Amino acid sequence: MTDALPSEPAQAPPSPAQGPVSDDFHVFDTTLRDGAQREGINLTVADKLTIARHLDDFGVGFIEGGWPGANPRDTEFFARARAEIDFRHAQLVAFGATRKAGVRVEDDPQVAALLESQAPVVTLVAKSHVRHVELALRTTPEENLAMVRDTVAYLRAHGRRVFLDCEHFFDGYVRDPDYAKQVVRTASEAGADVVVLCDTNGGMLPAQVTAVVRTVLADTGARLGIHAQDDTGCAVANTLAAVDAGATHVQCTANGYGERVGNANLFPVVAALELKYDRRVLPAGKLAETTRISHAIAEVVNLTPSTHQPYVGVSAFAHKAGLHASAIKIDPDLYQHIDPAQVGNTMRMLVSDMAGRASIELKGKELGIDLGGDRALVGRVVERVKERELAGYTYEAADASFELLLRAELQRAAAGEPRRYFRVESWRAIVEDRPDGTHANEATVKLWAKGERIVTTAEGNGPVNALDRALRIGLERIYPQLAKIELVDYKVRILEGRQGTGSITRVLVSTTDGHGEWSTVGVAENVIAASWQALDDAYAYGLLRAGVEPRE
Amino acid sequence: MTDALPSEPAQAPPSPAQGPVSDDFHVFDTTLRDGAQREGINLTVADKLTIARHLDDFGVGFIEGGWPGANPRDTEFFARARAEIDFRHAQLVAFGATRKAGVRVEDDPQVAALLESQAPVVTLVAKSHVRHVELALRTTPEENLAMVRDTVAYLRAHGRRVFLDCEHFFDGYVRDPDYAKQVVRTASEAGADVVVLCDTNGGMLPAQVTAVVRTVLADTGARLGIHAQDDTGCAVANTLAAVDAGATHVQCTANGYGERVGNANLFPVVAALELKYDRRVLPAGKLAETTRISHAIAEVVNLTPSTHQPYVGVSAFAHKAGLHASAIKIDPDLYQHIDPAQVGNTMRMLVSDMAGRASIELKGKELGIDLGGDRALVGRVVERVKERELAGYTYEAADASFELLLRAELQRAAAGEPRRYFRVESWRAIVEDRPDGTHANEATVKLWAKGERIVTTAEGNGPVNALDRALRIGLERIYPQLAKIELVDYKVRILEGRQGTGSITRVLVSTTDGHGEWSTVGVAENVIAASWQALDDAYAYGLLRAGVEPRE
Repeated sequence: MTDALPSEPAQAPPSPAQGPVSDDFHVFDTTLRDGAQREGINLTVADKLTIARHLDDFGVGFIEGGWPGANPRDTEFFARARAEIDFRHAQLVAFGATRKAGVRVEDDPQVAALLESQAPVVTLVAKSHVRHVELALRTTPEENLAMVRDTVAYLRAHGRRVFLDCEHFFDGYVRDPDYAKQVVRTASEAGADVVVLCDTNGGMLPAQVTAVVRTVLADTGARLGIHAQDDTGCAVANTLAAVDAGATHVQCTANGYGERVGNANLFPVVAALELKYDRRVLPAGKLAETTRISHAIAEVVNLTPSTHQPYVGVSAFAHKAGLHASAIKIDPDLYQHIDPAQVGNTMRMLVSDMAGRASIELKGKELGIDLGGDRALVGRVVERVKERELAGYTYEAADASFELLLRAELQRAAAGEPRRYFRVESWRAIVEDRPDGTHANEATVKLWAKGERIVTTAEGNGPVNALDRALRIGLERIYPQLAKIELVDYKVRILEGRQGTGSITRVLVSTTDGHGEWSTVGVAENVIAASWQALDDAYAYGLLRAGVEPRE
Repeated sequence: MTDALPSEPAQAPPSPAQGPVSDDFHVFDTTLRDGAQREGINLTVADKLTIARHLDDFGVGFIEGGWPGANPRDTEFFARARAEIDFRHAQLVAFGATRKAGVRVEDDPQVAALLESQAPVVTLVAKSHVRHVELALRTTPEENLAMVRDTVAYLRAHGRRVFLDCEHFFDGYVRDPDYAKQVVRTASEAGADVVVLCDTNGGMLPAQVTAVVRTVLADTGARLGIHAQDDTGCAVANTLAAVDAGATHVQCTANGYGERVGNANLFPVVAALELKYDRRVLPAGKLAETTRISHAIAEVVNLTPSTHQPYVGVSAFAHKAGLHASAIKIDPDLYQHIDPAQVGNTMRMLVSDMAGRASIELKGKELGIDLGGDRALVGRVVERVKERELAGYTYEAADASFELLLRAELQRAAAGEPRRYFRVESWRAIVEDRPDGTHANEATVKLWAKGERIVTTAEGNGPVNALDRALRIGLERIYPQLAKIELVDYKVRILEGRQGTGSITRVLVSTTDGHGEWSTVGVAENVIAASWQALDDAYAYGLLRAGVEPRE
């Protein structure tokens, strides 16, 4: 069987044009393998290819693609990645285990599958904790060392670069430091380029990590890497703690996705290395794409991007406190540890009833509306925001609805009642589940625009979709600009009524015209009525963006 | 004015029965002040009182309640907390600033408001960064020191315990270490019990924090505290790094709520101190309530609890990988850094198409269903889960729907088609927005249960509510047990159709019978149909829990 295997890897060794920025320090991404273990993530091969492209674009040095042989989807991924992706920065890495106990390495089909993947780099997972060797592998500590030695040497002989992941290294080190170090030495002597110390259960704290990595480095002389899980909330810090002690290879996942709490998050690790350690680990200019890449990967895995993720969350540079807002008017650096543009993020002033006039004025400026001169107007906007937020609206997440509110107050101040693009007389939506299991969704909308009364009926795949289509069919006759506008996201939240007010429904809608995206909010007792309000704002804002003059 | 102020605090100094576990180490919570700065949080006075009760119950030593005088809501909070809450562990802390520049401390109304709050402890915020003194306070470094000295001494003379927050301490220390230390010394000499070093912009990393805290402690001899923000993703680690260097007072917020990315999260900090440092910081038995308290506070602030929060997230001890599942069958400690029961959490096996037979068997065991013997049955369940998840269902978040699926397969294996509680013939929902702005929501349901055909129509505050009521009115005649069952949460997610399948809607419903809560899932092209499926499962599961025999 061995003869049939390709003896040379498909990719050449790293070169300046292809491979990590510098081989002295590795940013190693394992989103596609360890990240995929996160609850709620379920990746298709197409998803994995898309994520690999984003990671390569970001500029990580290594992309661990999965476990070929153990999982048919991963086998397919390696075949398609080879054929379809022209990697600019990253090298593809196959993940697998050391040979089985009592089996010759050349007879182990799982090891053969690693070669068959043609990945130029292989990460082997090995046990370094005596208890795991005995309980999980059911073999002896000596045979485990032989398994490491044989598998590393075999893959090296076939031209692969080998990294060895020491699973449960830190827990194993606490129990039996000599054995743990023996595994490191064995791998290194057999030809592994990097031995990665894994905090598999994620129970470590930074001071411990620094101490252990420092000792292992001194005692073994091996090149060391770190793989941290976030179970104590310290994965990023533990990764940096290992770097402080001399590790030169960091394993991370995009957005910290991973088993249980997750893995060390690629983005804050890379940002800390570049901005706090002054260590260049990405190609020039790529750090400024951090926010975009983070959000793009969240889209592919179909998880809402964390609003509070360090560096890249929409809240990461959002300021709410009146105290901060006043200081930021003087100098943004007073309340920001970095310039958000360095990671492709932006500063935002939040509108909320905690915010005072300073926040509303700054927010207006952000939207290109100067309110500086009119204290009474700013006061009315603050009042209106408080009143609406009390009713369940949230403008923090609905910039477009806030801008419409602000402009309406401006118009009121200038010329009485604000002019609108259209006025709705009434609407109706019907959903019917038929005995044959199919559904009918029908909506009728009656509205006025540019002096015309329009009545339209439409069907849709749901009641909101039917309403959206009826509204759009009606309005497009008057405002053809709406043809480009598309609903891209739709979120519903039930707000528990406190103080006996009964529960209400809040809908947030994101809409795009192909150039930009905006969010609007609706609040009502029921989901359809709340959706309707958010749609109403979404179209009004789309027309405002398109520069259309309102004519009710 | 001074004469009118109470000269003694309302609460006695800490005693074993009331106050922190030990004054040697302070767990200081600032959820109600700094936590409330988080984007999306908007607390009423009632919310603040509820959170204060939870925090006191958890056993923190100090609860910073807000800024009396600066914010009318906070003034009211202190008055009501004094009257309504009988604190068992915590002392209430008022937050405020040092006196204004050029104003006598006894003439500063903001300082007077701190005394008027009658809180026994006051945290004063002071500048310790020369640039902030000059740009934000617009005063001299000398006057800033006098402001610290005067305000601390004045509050001490009125019987208050004083903690001093050095805002921007670490950034200030980098710029001018002597001045930063002078602020610490001044506060300490004037009688501040603790001087808290704040990483206000959150840009620090643990190694820096340890180094700075160690030096400041050696050079000033003051008792030091730490206040860390999470902008580098290291707030928990930075807090522990300060403790490593000798800080004995940690400022945290529940669930890490706070400005921008957030603050050091109370729960992983406390868990690390108790479980990793062997330092008792909570009253006996309280650590095991961590998960409950974390979720309860999330409910009050109306944010979905983070599923991936360390220690307390529902995913924190959830295992998905087939490799892990096999190992956990041998010994759960192999893949967990602590026993989840220590923090009131539980281990969960996740059902997903990555999971193999081992996960399904463990999940069955968790539900009290032994599948061990029947390989064909387990295989069919695995297939069915894969097929449904491909269609958009998710069983990870809908345990009850999974159990219904599992039981249906069991019944199929035993006796052909599974028996059901009811069968729906058809339904219809109508939402109408009338010209007067009111809404009509009406639903009709036609179903069969126990051989009877039932047709009911109901109104509701929305179409799903109307359907829910029509279904319930119809079913309650046959199954009176449903009267106790109540819908408690309702979530909607639009799943983008990839590969041109069009988007679909997923609804998750949480339901309670007053004893427990369960989640069900529905997936369909439209929100009403998806909601209907989730409701259908919710009632079926409620009847199953109630021990009712199915009779279609």
